[in-house]
Amino acid sequence: MTQPVPDHGIQDTGFQLQDGLDEAIAAFCLPEVLGFGSVFGPAMFRADYRDGQWLPGEFQRYGPIALEPGAKVLHYAQEVFEGLKAYRVDGREAALFRPEMNWRRLNSSAARLCLPAVPESVYVDGVFGVTALNEAFIPGASGESLYLRPFLFGTESNLGMGVAREVSFMVIASPSQAYHPGSMSLLIERGESRVAGGGIGAAKVGGNYACALQSAARCAELGYDLTLWLDPVKRRDIEELSGMNFFAVVDGRLLTPTLTGSILAGITRDSVIQLARSRGLEVEETSIAVDELLEWIAQGRCSECFACGTAAIIAPIRELGEADGRRCQLPPEGGAITASLRQALLDIQEGRAEDTFGWMAAIPDRYRRSSMSL
Amino acid sequence: MTQPVPDHGIQDTGFQLQDGLDEAIAAFCLPEVLGFGSVFGPAMFRADYRDGQWLPGEFQRYGPIALEPGAKVLHYAQEVFEGLKAYRVDGREAALFRPEMNWRRLNSSAARLCLPAVPESVYVDGVFGVTALNEAFIPGASGESLYLRPFLFGTESNLGMGVAREVSFMVIASPSQAYHPGSMSLLIERGESRVAGGGIGAAKVGGNYACALQSAARCAELGYDLTLWLDPVKRRDIEELSGMNFFAVVDGRLLTPTLTGSILAGITRDSVIQLARSRGLEVEETSIAVDELLEWIAQGRCSECFACGTAAIIAPIRELGEADGRRCQLPPEGGAITASLRQALLDIQEGRAEDTFGWMAAIPDRYRRSSMSL
Ligand SMILES: Cc1ncc(COP(=O)(O)O)c(C=O)c1O
Ligand SMILES: Cc1ncc(COP(=O)(O)O)c(C=O)c1O
Repeated sequence: MTQPVPDHGIQDTGFQLQDGLDEAIAAFCLPEVLGFGSVFGPAMFRADYRDGQWLPGEFQRYGPIALEPGAKVLHYAQEVFEGLKAYRVDGREAALFRPEMNWRRLNSSAARLCLPAVPESVYVDGVFGVTALNEAFIPGASGESLYLRPFLFGTESNLGMGVAREVSFMVIASPSQAYHPGSMSLLIERGESRVAGGGIGAAKVGGNYACALQSAARCAELGYDLTLWLDPVKRRDIEELSGMNFFAVVDGRLLTPTLTGSILAGITRDSVIQLARSRGLEVEETSIAVDELLEWIAQGRCSECFACGTAAIIAPIRELGEADGRRCQLPPEGGAITASLRQALLDIQEGRAEDTFGWMAAIPDRYRRSSMSL
Repeated sequence: MTQPVPDHGIQDTGFQLQDGLDEAIAAFCLPEVLGFGSVFGPAMFRADYRDGQWLPGEFQRYGPIALEPGAKVLHYAQEVFEGLKAYRVDGREAALFRPEMNWRRLNSSAARLCLPAVPESVYVDGVFGVTALNEAFIPGASGESLYLRPFLFGTESNLGMGVAREVSFMVIASPSQAYHPGSMSLLIERGESRVAGGGIGAAKVGGNYACALQSAARCAELGYDLTLWLDPVKRRDIEELSGMNFFAVVDGRLLTPTLTGSILAGITRDSVIQLARSRGLEVEETSIAVDELLEWIAQGRCSECFACGTAAIIAPIRELGEADGRRCQLPPEGGAITASLRQALLDIQEGRAEDTFGWMAAIPDRYRRSSMSL
C-alpha cells in the first residue's frame, strides 16, 4: 500500500549517529498539548557541505547548533526550507506524503538562491531517518502528524554579498496538531506585495515569509485570519496565501491560479488537482481576477473557496474582505466540494483509503534503529 | 571636531563584560590581508529581547553563537541589519560616520518585519563599545576601516509563521579594506526583480539580498561586475544596485532615483546629496528611465555615473550593459565630479577635512576599556 523507496546508495553516502542519541530518545516525553511546530522530536539530522562536497550526515540529539555570527544565513537570508508530514494514524505504520516532491522543490528553491543541491540520498537519509528515530512520538489522532522540516542554509562566515561556500542541510521534526482547524476569513491585500514578478515567489525561501509578516499583523488588527495576495504587477489576479494555495468552485468547476512564477507550486495543490479530476470534477488552472471572483460570489456563481497546504491540508474560506471592512461571504463552514476533497485527501494520508496515486512512502527498514549500526 | 554623543542613560541600561574578553583582545592578531567582511575583531556585543523587554547587553569574545534549529531566523528570515564604518586613518582618533542614521534605519527595517525596535542606548552601547574594544585593530591606511555590522534577528524556536517573541541584537566588527576599488561594469537587469513594489525594498532585510544572488551569478557569467535593478512594476526606471545607490551626472546636474519605497535610503546617498549641494552642484531626486539614460550617454549629455554605499564609498561606473552583450561606455576611470565627491567624502570620513556637517561621532570615554568596570 505504500510506495517503495528506491535504494539511493545509502551505504555509499554513509551517516553517523551522535553519542547519546538513544538516551535522548528514551528520555523524551511528548507533551499533552502540541500545537503546530513548537514541540520538537528528540532526533534531528545534519549534513554539511564544504569545499564543493557533501560530508556524511549525522543523526543528532535535537538541540542548539553553533553558528558563526558572520554566517550568511543571519545577514543575507541564504535559506530555503520544506515542510512535509509523516502520518501514523490509528496505529498504522508511519508513512510520508509525497516526499520526493519536496526534495525536487527544495532543490529548485536552492538553485534560485545559488545554494548547492541536496543529493537524493542525503535527503532520503534525513527525512526517513528522522521519521524512524522519532516514530514513537508521532501523534496518532486524525489530523495529527509528525511535521518534518528539511532546511538548507549558508553557514559561511563572511559579510561579502556572494554565495555561501559552506552550507548545512538539516531535518527537524515536530509532532503537531492540524494547523488551521475551522474556516478562514481572508484580507485581500491591495497595498503590499509579498514577492516581485521575476522574483523568488516560486521558491520556498525565508525572505518571502519575512515580507508577509506586516500584512499578517494588519489582518490581526482588522479581524481577518490571513492575507490573500494578488499579483505584484497589476494587483489584479489572485495568487495565494502566505503559506497556502487558493482554490474556488465557480459554476461547478474547480479553479486555481496558474503557476505564474510568483506562486509556490504547492504539493497539496497538485494533489488536489489530481484528486478532483479523478473524481470527475473539471479543474482549470487560470488567472482569477479578484474583483471578478467577488462578483461571482455575489451572483452565486462561486459557491465555495478553500486554501490548501501541507500544514492546513484543506481549509475552507468563509469570507474575503477589504481593509475598509467590506466583506464578501461564503458558506460559513465551507462547501460540500471542499469537505469531500479534504476528507478524500486525509483518508489517503491517514491510511484509511487505498493509495491509488502512489503518494505514500513507508520508512525503509534500514532506517529502523535496529538496522542502524552504531 | 567630532559630534558629541548624548548620554543615553547607559548607566540605566547597564552592560556586562564576558569573562576572558580582555585575554581574547590581547591575544588577537590582525592578519596582513583583510579583504572585506571576512576578518572579525575579537570583541562583539549581544543583547537579548524577551517577554517584551530588552535585557542588559554583554560585550563578548567573538565566536559562535548557539541557536535553536527551529529559530525563526533560520526559516523565515526574520533578520535586519546595518553597516557602518569607524575610521582611524593616520593615527587619528577613531570616529564613526553618522551612526544615528543607521540606528534610525535599523528600527525602520525592524518595524517592517514586525521586530522590536532597538533602544538608542542599547544601539549606542553596541556600536561604540565594540569600536572601542576593537580599536587597536582598526586598520589605518586610507580606504581602510572597521566595518561595523549591527544585526537583529528572531531566535524564538517555532515553525508557526508569526513574529518572533525572542530576538537578539548583535554588533560584530570587521577590520576591512575598501570594498570595491576601481570602476564597475553593470548589467541592466531586465528579467528579474529584487523586490516588489509594496514590498520590503526600503528595508535592509536579509531576504532582499538572497534574491539578488542569481542575478549576481549571471553578471559574473556575462562579464559584468554588478546588477543594476529597475523598478519592479514597469521595469523602466533605474532603482539601485544590490548594495549601493545610483547617481548620474546629466547636463552637469547630479540625478539620483527618488526613494520610491522599493529603494534603500542610503546614508551615503544622503551624504552625497548634501555634499554636492554644498559644493554648488544642482542635485535632483527624480525618476530615471534607463533607456533615456542610455540615450543621454550616447549623446554625451550624461558624462558620468557612479554608485555609492558605506562599503564602497563612491565607485565610478564605467559601463552599463545588456544580457545580450551590448554595452554603453562611460569614462573608464570615472569622471571628475565622481572623483571629487569621493575625495571630499573620504576627507571628512578619514579626518583630513573639517567636519562641517557634523557627521563624525567620536567614541565617548565611557566605552574605553579603562572606564568600563568589570
Ligand atoms: C507560499 C506557500 N504557498 C503554498 C504552500 C503550500 O504548499 P504545499 O502544499 O507543498 O505545502 C506553502 C507551504 O507549504 C507556502 O509556503
Ligand atoms: C540595497 C542597498 N542600497 C544602498 C545601500 C547603500 O546604503 P548606505 O549608503 O547607507 O550604506 C546599501 C547598503 O549599504 C544597500 O544594501
